[in-house]
Parts: sequence; structure tokens; C-alpha cells
Amino acid sequence: MEFTINRSAFIKQLTDVQRAISSKTTIPILTGIKVVLTASGLLLTGSDADVSIETFLSVEDEANNLTIESTGEIVLPARFFSEIVKKLPQDTFSLTVTDGYQTEITSGSASFNINGLDANNYPHLPEIDTDDNLIFSGSILKQIISQTVIAVSNQESRPILTGVHFVIENGEFLAVATDSHRLSQRKITLQGANDSKYDVIIPGKSLVELSRMIDDSNPDIEMRISENQVLFILGNTSFYSRLLEGNYPDTSRLIPNESATGIEFSAPKLLSAIERASLLSHESRNNVVKLAINAAEQKVVIYSNSPDVGNVEEALEFSNLSGNDLEISFNPDYMKDALRSFGQTEIKVAFTQPLRPFTLVPTEDTTQFIQLITPVRTF
Amino acid sequence: MEFTINRSAFIKQLTDVQRAISSKTTIPILTGIKVVLTASGLLLTGSDADVSIETFLSVEDEANNLTIESTGEIVLPARFFSEIVKKLPQDTFSLTVTDGYQTEITSGSASFNINGLDANNYPHLPEIDTDDNLIFSGSILKQIISQTVIAVSNQESRPILTGVHFVIENGEFLAVATDSHRLSQRKITLQGANDSKYDVIIPGKSLVELSRMIDDSNPDIEMRISENQVLFILGNTSFYSRLLEGNYPDTSRLIPNESATGIEFSAPKLLSAIERASLLSHESRNNVVKLAINAAEQKVVIYSNSPDVGNVEEALEFSNLSGNDLEISFNPDYMKDALRSFGQTEIKVAFTQPLRPFTLVPTEDTTQFIQLITPVRTF
Repeated sequence: MEFTINRSAFIKQLTDVQRAISSKTTIPILTGIKVVLTASGLLLTGSDADVSIETFLSVEDEANNLTIESTGEIVLPARFFSEIVKKLPQDTFSLTVTDGYQTEITSGSASFNINGLDANNYPHLPEIDTDDNLIFSGSILKQIISQTVIAVSNQESRPILTGVHFVIENGEFLAVATDSHRLSQRKITLQGANDSKYDVIIPGKSLVELSRMIDDSNPDIEMRISENQVLFILGNTSFYSRLLEGNYPDTSRLIPNESATGIEFSAPKLLSAIERASLLSHESRNNVVKLAINAAEQKVVIYSNSPDVGNVEEALEFSNLSGNDLEISFNPDYMKDALRSFGQTEIKVAFTQPLRPFTLVPTEDTTQFIQLITPVRTF
Repeated sequence: MEFTINRSAFIKQLTDVQRAISSKTTIPILTGIKVVLTASGLLLTGSDADVSIETFLSVEDEANNLTIESTGEIVLPARFFSEIVKKLPQDTFSLTVTDGYQTEITSGSASFNINGLDANNYPHLPEIDTDDNLIFSGSILKQIISQTVIAVSNQESRPILTGVHFVIENGEFLAVATDSHRLSQRKITLQGANDSKYDVIIPGKSLVELSRMIDDSNPDIEMRISENQVLFILGNTSFYSRLLEGNYPDTSRLIPNESATGIEFSAPKLLSAIERASLLSHESRNNVVKLAINAAEQKVVIYSNSPDVGNVEEALEFSNLSGNDLEISFNPDYMKDALRSFGQTEIKVAFTQPLRPFTLVPTEDTTQFIQLITPVRTF
């Protein structure tokens, strides 16, 4: 194998593939990056067995400036190889596999010789044997991921809750996640998905990595689902993730249909007040803030205290308060995550009872996006 | 005590004072910040017993927008107090010490009550009983610190080497640091210091903190030295550090007076090559790179290798090579620190023998700044 390539084009793709590679893997060859050179271009692959990323640098893309002397394949230690390529002195570099798996990397007057591994020992990527695909706008998919992964559980005791539940049916796409203390659900209408029907659970960690790869240069993303794998295609890059096995709990019955107290807030202003209150709650053993709603006096106050440090109270700005008076306590960190997911919008909060979950939705569109938080018993 | 003040002006000063406060202190009251309000303004003090920082917000400075209701003093938990003030909703805030040491902090509709401590229990700051002062340009002092602290030892086995040696004599200022493997020395002529004579050792950590406080708004910095303390005055802020006790080793005899091989490099280009070579050396047990100079062939090559990963060699660009051939091995991290301290300049490197220290100086001014590195024996 011998080729010369543009260094910055190569680094850009290498960085994407490296997202899949974990230094903590127990399979030594997976600390490496697989480099396969064919007559049509260069294929880079990285994997941690859960997520695999593959990207292709075509000989036809002039930006790659790819010159092929001879084809072949090799596995190179990912971290070193990447550090070396990033520090090379010139705009292009050459890579030659010499005796055995010895690999020479040259650029200008700098010449590295590193020990590679036999690419035949690299595990095969999963095969996705379906032509049925769904198309997402990159920015919408990124938004959906960021809005739902916040509610994913990081406890391995119920592995199924470490994923986001994707349900596609009747041309509608629904993503929901819950760690059993809170829930986040987002719906969109998916163009051209009328016949598709899927019900899968994708690990939250995979989605976070995928989301980091989505930038403005990925206007559309193709999703293909097989029995135990999902594939996302972003331009020249393929992102594979395993699916979680099992049945996701029925979350629809968790969301209350009616409310006893309704109130509207500016999401960023409420977020600032919660951030202030959480300074104190973080110093106390149970990390709770209390919200007291007085409908008759049209007054809403937030409280928190820490026996060691002190206490805080703040009257909140709000609008359209209606219904019953209420005192409710909750974990402010769940509230902060939820409020951040709304951005700079007005939100509507609906309560039923002090110990029943309450919901947050955008005031402008109350059906497509919902955050639910379970209160904390403080007595 | 009761006052109202502009929040951003207060935060700026608070941030400086907090640099002195360590969460690791064993003296509980030093986790606090001392706030003293007199008729003329507000004095903030933080200390970790080694470094103390004091800053004054004058009632006369309109930017402070300071309104005094009643004077007094209190010690407040530094981390919380700072987090609270940073998150308050309005441009100003009020602080009132109520019953005992309870302190109320209000801004808009947010109200915090935190537990303070008796300011009488806060340690007294050192007194510097001298009018003799030296004036530094802020940018020059910052440069001198950055150039010398790199060679300070971080081993407590020889505490004296954890400081920078400041010598002022005959209107000349000399700063030198060494960890016994390398040395960095900078000289400047100090205006108006003809009569002053000092020989002190300032902890490297103190100088790093001081240097972080120096920005473009501090054109001149006043330095006062007493028996066991040094005081730097930056505008309204006073920075105190203890001095290290003992005699600094005589470093002047370490610097060779002659050389057997001389060569010039571009500092940033040599730095890049050393960074490449150190990718491999960092993976090997002894972290060494080898430089081979061949005067007859006018060729200079750098080598490094790691048995596990591979090896690198690179022919270097240079100029004005003269003298004997040489093979010399050294720690590339020392070389990187030294080269970074020169910035974008040409440097002259002078060698005597493979196991004797070599020196780096700027080509343009070979006497004011010198870096010395001791080679490593590899056979």
C-alpha cells in the first residue's frame, strides 16, 4: 500500500472515525484505525464494538489530492497515527506499508516508522441488509437528540433506559427517553415515511456521538434500521450503532392528560432563577428546591436552603397563572436540563398534584415536545 | 454593614482576590473572603497563608456605584459568595449583615441569606515596612515570569529550587530559576533602581498567580520587598507573597563561557520538529531525543524511537553551523518549554560536549536571556 494525500482533508475524516475508538477497549486491535486503499479511494474505519464509523476519501474528490501508488490495507495505532499526522510539517503526506506491517509516514524531511497490525484481524462491520431508509434534516435530528438524551438513564441497572426509544409509524416519528424520574418526548412528521414502521431503542451514548458529527455540511442524514443495528449515513461517512434489546416501557400513560394548575414562564428567566436556587440545594443532602404557587395572590416563589450555608428565596416572573394553589418540590438539575432544551422560548408548565409528575411544553406548540419531571417528597 | 454596589465591577475584583483562596486550606476561615466596609470604600481580602490578595473598591469611583448605608466587616464563604454574586439577576446588588453574622444578599426579587464568620478571627496580612520600591512595566514583568518559571522545580525535596531568584544590584535586575536539569535566566536594566540592592527567592507558584493578574490595564507594577515578604501593587490591588528562606545556589558558574559547536535555528520550526520527535519519545521509558550534527556535511538530524510504537527521524533546517561534529541526547519536554519561551525568533544554540549543558539564546540579543539544558546520558 502506498499513497499521498492532502493532510487537512485526511485529518477531518480521521477525527470523525476516531470518535468510535475507545482507549478503554479490551480488544487490542480496536485501539487501531483500519486503513483500506482501493483504486477508488481510501476507507477509514474505527469501532468500539458498540459504535463503528467508516468514512471514505474518494480519489475523484480533488480536495483529497489522493495519489495511489499501490493498494492494500493496514491497521495503525489510532492515537499515535492521528497525533503524527496532525503534527507533520507539510500540506500533504505519504504513507507506505513496507516489510510486514511496518508503515512509513513521510512529510517534508520528517519520516516516521510505526508498527501496524494485520487488517485481516480487524472485526467485520455489521451488515445492514435493507434498502428501506428514512431521511432526516441534519439540524432537526441534532435537535431531537439533544432534547431527548438529557432524560436517558446512566444507570446500568435497567439497561433499556440508557437508550432513546425511536418509534416510526403512520408517517410520524417519535423519540422518547426516561430515567424513571423524568421523561422527554419529541414528535415530528417525517416526509416520505408513510409505509415505514419501526420500534427501536438506540443507546444514548451512540446518539451523542452521532450528534457531534452533525454540522452544517450535513443537510440530510439517511437512517437505515436492521434487526439489531442502525446505520446513519452522513455524506461519505457511515455511522453504525448496535440497538438495545428488550421492550421499552409504555411511556404514553405517564403523561397526564389534565392539569389542576397551569402557569407560563420565560424559559431562560426561569432557568436563571433555578440556577440561583440550586447553588444552595447542591449543598444540602437532598438537592431539592420548592416552588410555592399562590393563585389568589398571583404570586409564585421559589425556595431552597442548606443548613450549612444558608437559604434563598425569589419571587418569579410569570404569566397566565390559573387553577389551584400548590407547593411542590423537585430536583433543580432535572429542571435545568429541561429548561435548557427549550432555548429562548415561552413555556407552559402544568401541575396536577404535589406528588404527581408535572409537564413543560412550549407555549406556541404544546403537542410536539414535552418534558416531564417527577417531584420529590419532602415530608 | 450595609451597601449596594455595581455587580460587574465587584465581580472583577472578587475574581482577583479569589486567586489567593485555596479550597485545600487547613485553616477554615481562609476558605472565606474578608469584606471590610469603611466610609471610603470596600476592601476585599483573600489568602492561602502563602499568597494574600487585597483589593479596594473606592466609593469615589463611579463605575463601582457604591452606596454605603453602614460600615462593618464580615467573612463570607468565598466559593458560594462568588457563585451567588455571579448569578444574581440585576446590575447591582445589596449586602446587609443582619443578626450575628447572617448576611443577606439581594438583587431584584432574589434574596440569599448566608452564614458569615467573625472578621476578627481572620489572620492579619503581613506588613511591608519599606518605602523603597521598584517599578516594572506590567508586560515586561509578565514576560520575565513566563520565561523563568518554566525552569522552577516542582519537587519539594529542595524547596529553594521551587522559587525564582530575583537579584537587583547596580540598576540591573536578574531573574533566574533552575530545577538542576535546566536553567532559565533573564536580565533587564531597571530604571530608577540605582541604589536598590535585593537578593530574594519568590515561590514560582506565587509568580504564576501574579502573572495571571497582569493584563493591559496594569501598565506599571510596584514591587516592595521586606525581610520575608514581597508586595506587588497593581492599581487598587495588592499582591503579597512570602519569600523562600535560604541561599539560592550560585547559578552563574553553570553557564558555559565557550562553545565547541554553534548553530542557529528558527525557534518555532525547531519547536515543531521537537514536538514530532517527542510523540515517539513519550512512549519510550527514558523520553529522550537525539540530535546528530555533522559540520562537514552541513547536516543536522533529529531521532527518536519507542520499541513499542516505532521511530522518527527528521533533517532539520538551520543556519550558521560551525565547530565540531556532535551527537547529543536530551529531554524534548525541556527543549519545548525553552523554545516556546523565545516565541517567533531566531535562536543560537551553543554546545560544548555531549554530556555538558548547552545553551539557547536569541540571535539578536545574546546576553539578556539564556536557557540552559543538561543533556541525558544514553550509553
